Amino acid sequence: MRGNPVDRRSILAGLLASAATVSLSTRPASAQGDPLASWNEGPAKTAILNFVSAVTKEGTPDFVPASERIATFDNDGTLWCEQPMYVQLAFALDRVKALSGKHPEWRNKQPFKAVLDNDLATLAKAGEQGLVGLVMATHAGMTTAEFEKIASHWIATARHPKFGKLYTELVYQPMLELLAYLRSNGFKTFIVSGGGIEFMRPWTERVYGISPDQVVGSSIKTKFETNKGQPSLIRLPAVDFIDDGAGKPVGINSHIGRRPIAAFGNSDGDFQMLQWATAAGGRRFGLIVHHTDPEREYAYDRKSSFGRLDKALDAAQSNGWAVVGMKDDWKRVFSFQ
Amino acid sequence: MRGNPVDRRSILAGLLASAATVSLSTRPASAQGDPLASWNEGPAKTAILNFVSAVTKEGTPDFVPASERIATFDNDGTLWCEQPMYVQLAFALDRVKALSGKHPEWRNKQPFKAVLDNDLATLAKAGEQGLVGLVMATHAGMTTAEFEKIASHWIATARHPKFGKLYTELVYQPMLELLAYLRSNGFKTFIVSGGGIEFMRPWTERVYGISPDQVVGSSIKTKFETNKGQPSLIRLPAVDFIDDGAGKPVGINSHIGRRPIAAFGNSDGDFQMLQWATAAGGRRFGLIVHHTDPEREYAYDRKSSFGRLDKALDAAQSNGWAVVGMKDDWKRVFSFQ
Repeated sequence: MRGNPVDRRSILAGLLASAATVSLSTRPASAQGDPLASWNEGPAKTAILNFVSAVTKEGTPDFVPASERIATFDNDGTLWCEQPMYVQLAFALDRVKALSGKHPEWRNKQPFKAVLDNDLATLAKAGEQGLVGLVMATHAGMTTAEFEKIASHWIATARHPKFGKLYTELVYQPMLELLAYLRSNGFKTFIVSGGGIEFMRPWTERVYGISPDQVVGSSIKTKFETNKGQPSLIRLPAVDFIDDGAGKPVGINSHIGRRPIAAFGNSDGDFQMLQWATAAGGRRFGLIVHHTDPEREYAYDRKSSFGRLDKALDAAQSNGWAVVGMKDDWKRVFSFQ
Repeated sequence: MRGNPVDRRSILAGLLASAATVSLSTRPASAQGDPLASWNEGPAKTAILNFVSAVTKEGTPDFVPASERIATFDNDGTLWCEQPMYVQLAFALDRVKALSGKHPEWRNKQPFKAVLDNDLATLAKAGEQGLVGLVMATHAGMTTAEFEKIASHWIATARHPKFGKLYTELVYQPMLELLAYLRSNGFKTFIVSGGGIEFMRPWTERVYGISPDQVVGSSIKTKFETNKGQPSLIRLPAVDFIDDGAGKPVGINSHIGRRPIAAFGNSDGDFQMLQWATAAGGRRFGLIVHHTDPEREYAYDRKSSFGRLDKALDAAQSNGWAVVGMKDDWKRVFSFQ
């Protein structure tokens, strides 16, 4: 599999992904001493517990020193809801509407017109170039500080169309427990997402307990400038890095500098990250979240526009990756359920 | 100062920089309770202590929450010796010699011929392109795992021409104490170096207590591949990012995602990092290591090929940056002195 091509969807997946805000403190991670209280008993939960037990037991062949206990998590569809569209795409569409007063030309220019008309069918036909244009028009041309302010305000106010909740309330309670459990066992937990790195960082520490330096994502280029002695970083309308698919191991190497011993994903965009983490010597762990719960969340996999899970699902068994069915393996999906 | 151009030296500085190995445990960071025992009393030491005291005192205007206590350190000339040439350049020259048996054409091709002839005068004339060629010939065309092995072996055996020590023994004892002191006060310490990120990471945790994910540096591109199910990252002969000068704030934003409140450097390549850290609201700290000690180390600044300190030295006073004279401010430079 030399030279995995970045598929058509990956630019979209790369630039438009990710966000939710349940305070970590609102729900205790462990109830009655069970660190994975929202997980049903079963093979997936058992596999997690066995793996953590094995790599933390000093003097055994599977032992891994704490400094090498790196765990990487995809974000969209793995830590929070990615339907009916990536949260960052919802953000971009809202930004187009908010900025349209300053851009009268958008009324007659695609794909902006489709966004303003709420014409998702036409928008879907815009293709990669059209969507990149949307991102550049809404994510660039400002300082990093200004973008952080805009993204933070949006994430604190925008609501999910189905659940009526803040997006940061639509994080998976079992995964919050898993993050906390791994950290309590000496792991460093990283997000490795196709979503925009600067879209995630303003809220990941509060929501997931993951600090900005432990967030890896897609990025646009920035440029350092000073104006009257005041330095700033300007966000440029140019892609810097797409942290998706075969880009994920590259992003992991660049930002983390160690190979993970555990990786968690939900789509084909996580396939190479799972390979990178698990196809190495020593005890390793891979896990796929399978969206099987149309009642409490959504059910989708091979044919979904967002978070398509096909090749990675087929490869799970031969690679020994755990597949978590949300419906059967999780007692609840969100903290409010 | 819009669009700071990458100056001629920065590609070299960017790609060829950095290394030293004194176990952190061989010297206690504090003697008789002084966390900065190798620092002479004086304005620089006082400024450090006052800054740390101010930002860690809860309930005061200068207080900074621990999660925002980010300190960034240049490496070459700030944490370890960068004379008579960047350590990574010495590594590249040794690699040319080691690989020359497989490259008979190098005997008649510059700048390789100059390296093989130990003709540093001709080598110095090779210019940026020639030096980039040396780096690509010695740092690319292998997997990241292979490069780590090569760099680790070299750093464990190569010796400094003047001191006869391993390069990792030529780290500055006062700076090791400063790193430990900041961490003990809740700071996260990062390296932000023009040197190659993968050249530093194999030894920074052992030498400085800085884990690979907290090392920011220059990089070449990598590509994910699988061969018979075994994934690897191939190092490509192409520059990915130059973490020097105006690149340092960009690298900080990309890897750390928070603006530092303290920055430590020694050359004009650190100027923008110092600006970025200190020209913001709230209590901030900038420090420049000035090489003034020809006996115990080296004395150089405005005219040096490696670690030139000119513009940043002039700007120190008006920006309130502490300037540390190695000769006067440090009781000792290296742990063995």
